[in-house]
This record gives sequence, structure tokens and C-alpha cells, in this order.
Amino acid sequence: MTDMSTTKFEPTERSTIHRLPSRGSYDKTKVYNVLDQGILAHVGFTTTNGPVVIPMGYARKGDSIILHGSAKSRLMIELARGADVCVTVTLLDGLVLARSTFHHSMNYRSVVVFGHASVIADAEVRNAALEHLVEHLVPGRGAEARGANEGELEATLVVEVPIREASLKARSGPPVDETRDLEIDIWSGVLPLSLETGEPVPDEHTADGKPVPDYVLNYSRGR
Amino acid sequence: MTDMSTTKFEPTERSTIHRLPSRGSYDKTKVYNVLDQGILAHVGFTTTNGPVVIPMGYARKGDSIILHGSAKSRLMIELARGADVCVTVTLLDGLVLARSTFHHSMNYRSVVVFGHASVIADAEVRNAALEHLVEHLVPGRGAEARGANEGELEATLVVEVPIREASLKARSGPPVDETRDLEIDIWSGVLPLSLETGEPVPDEHTADGKPVPDYVLNYSRGR
Repeated sequence: MTDMSTTKFEPTERSTIHRLPSRGSYDKTKVYNVLDQGILAHVGFTTTNGPVVIPMGYARKGDSIILHGSAKSRLMIELARGADVCVTVTLLDGLVLARSTFHHSMNYRSVVVFGHASVIADAEVRNAALEHLVEHLVPGRGAEARGANEGELEATLVVEVPIREASLKARSGPPVDETRDLEIDIWSGVLPLSLETGEPVPDEHTADGKPVPDYVLNYSRGR
Repeated sequence: MTDMSTTKFEPTERSTIHRLPSRGSYDKTKVYNVLDQGILAHVGFTTTNGPVVIPMGYARKGDSIILHGSAKSRLMIELARGADVCVTVTLLDGLVLARSTFHHSMNYRSVVVFGHASVIADAEVRNAALEHLVEHLVPGRGAEARGANEGELEATLVVEVPIREASLKARSGPPVDETRDLEIDIWSGVLPLSLETGEPVPDEHTADGKPVPDYVLNYSRGR
């Protein structure tokens, strides 16, 4: 990839990081890394009643974000109409405890993608997108679970949002205190936060002693 | 609180849960519990260039959501103008692994609040809101850290969004498979997810051996 146009997103008026621009990036690899680590997106669009933000599972597939939902869902019908959307994915990495309340902060990585959703009409392409979605959320699961049948495919709307207008904003590292505050003798630093898994809970139809698959046991996100 | 009007939010067109209404609630106690457990909100509003969704620290204070940021931030200036906003807080509780890809899901609790932001102009009220914010994010920290001085207060915009139009949507429990799929012999169930703390990292100005405060050691969110 020697063509620079493919490795950086061109900043636009709405995707430009104005505040603390040193925390921003338009680097495609960094943006995709956050999108590939996340599970949940917050999808915003504008209705006649005002702005709406809804949490949704998602996946990046190539240079698009895939979203899906019931064909009966008002949200999905709205998106499938080609709504102007903002898809935001945030990974929370820690709490930053400074000596002054003013300099308290959070460490995070957040990607914002602006674009128009468009429906994936072709059933085969839609099926591939849904399989990709499951594989993004739980890598390894797609090989085991039963794939969608025709009725399920028809009941599902899938839209894609091209990733062309996107930026990353991130903060990492220790607190930044005023020099005159450094003498305040309180513990200061970072409390790391991460999304962790608990003990897998089999459902009542899973045979006793059925081993938990490795892709569940070793599941890890947000690194 | 015998007055029912204070314990339930009146559903409006945009706050009504249409899809799977059994997963929705307008109960004030449940809504506030999610808001009080969360750390990060995704705040959506509409600009001339389309919808924007930004991650922000927040706190519930009484019947309002408090948001803050630099007085130079375009986002904060927009909010302080009385923008119509949607504030969404999502707690992710687990991945739901069904026998069919179609019935894969997530366990979560998500609150959506619709309203107009308004600036907190009074410096004393603004200071109290900021102190509440730090205390929401890290209970116990406010007693130790230096509070905001006049210059810091002036550099900070604080807005509040009244919590009047709000709803909760949640999913919990095991996968729900088609009866005919129950014979598919794969491990199925829930992989719990939660926000967990790592080892606290003191900054270079914290004295060696300075004990980590209990409020940091015992920090826990999202329960």
C-alpha cells in the first residue's frame, strides 16, 4: 500500500479533530484496529423528533461498517432508507486521577464514522455480511452455529456504511497536573479499565460436561 | 413517593420501545440505576453537516444529566446553545451464544434520554456540578483532589439535560433457540462481560510506597 490515499482518511469539516488535535488521527490502520476490537457501536441519526443514539452490534467488513436488525424495526427501516448516520465506537481504557479535579480524565480510544447507510439487498451478500458479523463478535462461532435460513434472512435487514469519513481520538498515559499541584501529596495515576469475561454460563439444553469451546474460554476484546 | 408520576417516565413517540416492548421500561429507579452505574455516555446531536455522536463522561445529578467540557470546544458551545440531544448510556453484560447465528445476541442495559441541554451559568452551581461529576466517576476522589479554581471554572462549560423523556432497554438471560435447533449439539449459553479494573499505575510524582486509596482499590462499576 504505497498509495497514501488509501492509508489516511481525508479530514472533512465534521471529522476534523479541533480540540487537542494531537489526540486525533485519520490513520486507516489505527481506525480499523479500534473498529475491529470493539463489540458495540453507538449509532446516531436524525429523526423528525430530533437526534437518536442507539447501541448496536456491528462489524467492519472491508471498508464498510455492517449493521443489522429486524426488518420490522423502525430504526432499521430508517437506516435502510439511506439515513445519514454517525457510528461511534469507544474503547474505555482507564480513569486518570490527577491532583486537581480539573485535570481528571479518561483514557480511551474512540472512532467516529460519518456516512450514509445503504441496504444490502442481495440475499447472498446479506448472508455473507451476517456471517461476518457473528464472526466479528465471537470469532470461531460461525463454524459451529447453524447459519441463517431463507426465512431468517428475509426477516433481517442489513445495511452497510462506507468508511470514508472517519477519525480516531484517543488519550493514554498518566495525568498531566499543573506544576504547582505536584506537591499535593495524594496518590495519582491511572486506574486501568477493560472489558473482561466472566465464567461462561451454559444454557439448560447444553449437555452436562460439554466442554466450553476454546474461542469462548480465550475470548478477549479491546486490546 | 406515592405519586406515580414521579416513579415512571411518560413514554413519548421517540422514547417508546416498539421492538420487543417486554425488554423496555420507563421505571425511574431502573433508569437511574443504569445512569449511576455507567461512566461513559454517547451524546448525539444534529449539526448542519448531519448527526454527530461523541463519547463523554457524565453524571446524573438529581433529575438531570450533567455534561462538561472546555469552553473552547465546539461540541460544548453547541450543547450550551440549547441543542436537542440524545444521551445514551449502555452497560454491556454478556454475549449470548445460541445454536443458530440468527439468535445470537447480547445481554445489556441501555438508557436513552432525550432533551435539551442548557448551560449552568452560575459559577457556584457549576462548581457543585463539577464536583458531583468527579464524585460520580470516582467516588471518594473529591475529598482528596484540589477543587477547581476560578480560572478553571471559567474555562469549563457545564450543561444539564433534564431527565424527563427516558427509557431503558435491556436483555438478560440465556439464548432463546428454535425448538428444532435444540438438538444441535454445541455449547450454548452466555459469556458474561463486565468492565474490570487492572493494577493501578501511580504516576512518577507519586511517592514510592504511597498506598493506593481504598476507593481506587475497590473501584467497581456496572453491577
